[in-house]
Amino acid sequence: MSKTIHFYFDLSSPYAYLASEQIEALAARTGCVVDWHPIMLGFVFKVTGGAPLTSLPMKGDYSMLDFKRSAVFYDVPYLQPSVFPIASTTAARAILWAKKYANSEYIRLTKSLFQAYFQLDQDISKNEVIAPLLRASGIDADAVIAATQTDEVKGFLKAEVDAAIAHKVFGTPYFIVDGEPFWGADRLPMMERWIAKGAWNY
Amino acid sequence: MSKTIHFYFDLSSPYAYLASEQIEALAARTGCVVDWHPIMLGFVFKVTGGAPLTSLPMKGDYSMLDFKRSAVFYDVPYLQPSVFPIASTTAARAILWAKKYANSEYIRLTKSLFQAYFQLDQDISKNEVIAPLLRASGIDADAVIAATQTDEVKGFLKAEVDAAIAHKVFGTPYFIVDGEPFWGADRLPMMERWIAKGAWNY
Repeated sequence: MSKTIHFYFDLSSPYAYLASEQIEALAARTGCVVDWHPIMLGFVFKVTGGAPLTSLPMKGDYSMLDFKRSAVFYDVPYLQPSVFPIASTTAARAILWAKKYANSEYIRLTKSLFQAYFQLDQDISKNEVIAPLLRASGIDADAVIAATQTDEVKGFLKAEVDAAIAHKVFGTPYFIVDGEPFWGADRLPMMERWIAKGAWNY
Repeated sequence: MSKTIHFYFDLSSPYAYLASEQIEALAARTGCVVDWHPIMLGFVFKVTGGAPLTSLPMKGDYSMLDFKRSAVFYDVPYLQPSVFPIASTTAARAILWAKKYANSEYIRLTKSLFQAYFQLDQDISKNEVIAPLLRASGIDADAVIAATQTDEVKGFLKAEVDAAIAHKVFGTPYFIVDGEPFWGADRLPMMERWIAKGAWNY
């Protein structure tokens, strides 16, 4: 039985994007499957008192440098979005619609949204940007964008955020595998060794 | 001419301790020298609005787990101190006294203080704990502990903290090499590659 890596991400998180470009290869190497969970960090921060990295004194400037440098280190393409951060509510709801009703496409859609934002500087908070990405994933864009305004699909995202908070997800990317939490793209090598060696004594 | 890695640390920072056990080998591999800078994060947080990791909702519990797990990952001994965090003012001033007046001993003293706290669970905020460590580093413990209360030696620490803030050091461990900042024990592999390859384009 494959282990499942639960991958929590906010679509406007640079480190989550950097993880999104690496997690499938890690899962393949370790024989795991990945369950992708879009969340909205803004709602998490209301509970934790957290704040966007780039809004913090000193840490903000450092982070802007470290996003780009980390991308070089991980060998992942990266372009700092000109509008940053953004509210990715509609995109996140569209992913959860696809996860429920077009399961095989939701990961492809997620990666295309991340890439549009962090490789092509497209503002994925806008419906006209999301629509062609939905179509490219074989999804009826107009119908799904309309569905993101229904109580049902709003509820999908609210449930993911509530579950993330219940699992103590305080930032993204956040991974949980066999109950073990890992926070940050920089923890991927540690998670890989943890999975390979089984639980450590510590 | 060797490059200098400036290493800023708070003696009660677990990740700074984990870095202290690795930085000399990294410097040897890259042909660098290390300039060790004890600072007090409490004073930095007054400027940045930062807070000790373990005081933060959710992040605190995660951090306590990640300290120990990171130590296993880095193959560094680690014992979570029972009194944590502590104000390491006297110990930091003693290091700066040693750096000025017994230069060859200050790194040995620094490492012995970190190890006493994070390997032996000794409370290095107490003079009776610091004294034997000073003696083991060939330093007149009574004289130096008395010196830590003088305006001169208090000024050494204040100058380090002010310089750190001027260099935008917002947490520890923090490294600056050739003007490039790296924050966190988890950035050591990135710093090593950065030094080896020279400045990256990003």
